[in-house]
Amino acid sequence: MVTPVKIVVIGSGNVATHMAAALDRVADVIQIYSPNHSHAERLAKSLKDATPVSTLDAIDPTADYYIIAVKDDAIAGIADNLPVTSDEAVWAHTSGSVPSNVFSGKCRNYGVFYPLQTFNRLTEVDFAKVPMLIEGNSTVTSQRLFTLAEKISGNVRFADSTDRKLFHLAAVFACNFTNRLWAISDEILRTRGFDLTLLEPLLRMTLDNALKSSPADVQTGPARRHDSAVISSHIEQLPDDYAEIYRLISENIANAYPNEQN
Amino acid sequence: MVTPVKIVVIGSGNVATHMAAALDRVADVIQIYSPNHSHAERLAKSLKDATPVSTLDAIDPTADYYIIAVKDDAIAGIADNLPVTSDEAVWAHTSGSVPSNVFSGKCRNYGVFYPLQTFNRLTEVDFAKVPMLIEGNSTVTSQRLFTLAEKISGNVRFADSTDRKLFHLAAVFACNFTNRLWAISDEILRTRGFDLTLLEPLLRMTLDNALKSSPADVQTGPARRHDSAVISSHIEQLPDDYAEIYRLISENIANAYPNEQN
Repeated sequence: MVTPVKIVVIGSGNVATHMAAALDRVADVIQIYSPNHSHAERLAKSLKDATPVSTLDAIDPTADYYIIAVKDDAIAGIADNLPVTSDEAVWAHTSGSVPSNVFSGKCRNYGVFYPLQTFNRLTEVDFAKVPMLIEGNSTVTSQRLFTLAEKISGNVRFADSTDRKLFHLAAVFACNFTNRLWAISDEILRTRGFDLTLLEPLLRMTLDNALKSSPADVQTGPARRHDSAVISSHIEQLPDDYAEIYRLISENIANAYPNEQN
Repeated sequence: MVTPVKIVVIGSGNVATHMAAALDRVADVIQIYSPNHSHAERLAKSLKDATPVSTLDAIDPTADYYIIAVKDDAIAGIADNLPVTSDEAVWAHTSGSVPSNVFSGKCRNYGVFYPLQTFNRLTEVDFAKVPMLIEGNSTVTSQRLFTLAEKISGNVRFADSTDRKLFHLAAVFACNFTNRLWAISDEILRTRGFDLTLLEPLLRMTLDNALKSSPADVQTGPARRHDSAVISSHIEQLPDDYAEIYRLISENIANAYPNEQN
């Protein structure tokens, strides 16, 4: 008989909630820790057989994995106060921006168990499709975290702290900045009583095309065509701050496609 | 017995192909015109009962609608050489950027029949979800084009030339510029052997969230948090041209959310 993997989840927010649910389907989440007992209780209740705890020294020392899914700036405080656990136990946090050496000298086996996804209470996440990025302080620990990640996701990779930093930078461009451009677009549309949802089929097709080939291959629009008449007329319609963004990105596109002048 | 609506489609490119297929399911596309006969023939063959023609004077004068789906700069040339058709016939082009008065003085009933979507040969389009934007040179013509559009799309609206110009500007921000940011993100990821597909679940979730509420409500990232340490470290990692884009959009986000300083 195979002994089920035992996991303690530290945290009760969005990441902890989605992560605990996914892990509980493939392993035994035995405890949920949160300093706020009622938060720990609420999350524990949604799982098969988990107990809520609200002090670190109440944490069960016999688990195989301890997954810390709390806000970035709370990780170091927990790492500084790790309870004693077995020599085999692996501690890992789920953050993209905290280095794994936050655990250095605090426990024997540690690493990162980072889901490259944004989570909120309202939206179901299909964890099988979430890229899981793994780092461990030894080959064995890396492999053990990898094996656990493979139980919940079909897309698991090793990624060190340098990689994770790069993903964060890439995500700022691909998600935060694009969202801002959608907000500007939405604002423009609202001046005549429309909104961004009008562009939904176009937005989805643009994203599909970018992912299917590569975004550089499917670039379209007046800047790529070096269509200065359209570019000027657009800039004239915009307030200064949006005009500056329009000008800079158009210039960047035009420079990236220099041989396609009309 | 209701006489089926008869339509002539002018053009044989991507828009014409998708449009003719959609119209042929709800009406009779009786002719396809293209100056290149083999192109007209290939498209006509894919329809129920359409004849290919390659000269404008071979166009059937008895159709109800003539839909011009050709490149923007070819529309005026066709409008200048319209064949004589019945008094009831409606001529319309499918462009977002050509004003409807390109037909002024050339025919009696005219307008715009604009699908707000990008088309390519490889991707099927669910026309039912494509916003159709309608303009006519009279109330009756507007209504007739609206009625035709409703046969193929569940999302039909009136939009005049000023509206269409605004949509184009909004789409440049929402599609062309975001695609460029994805290209930059892709380039950043490739420096360590990854690519944009790694971010796919994150990108889809970001778009879903922006459409579900409004992009201004779901903005996240270091600029919104006024996290100057992360912003500086990101800018240091970037080449000058990308650093300038990073700085400008971050500034714009920070200014849009002034009351959320750490």
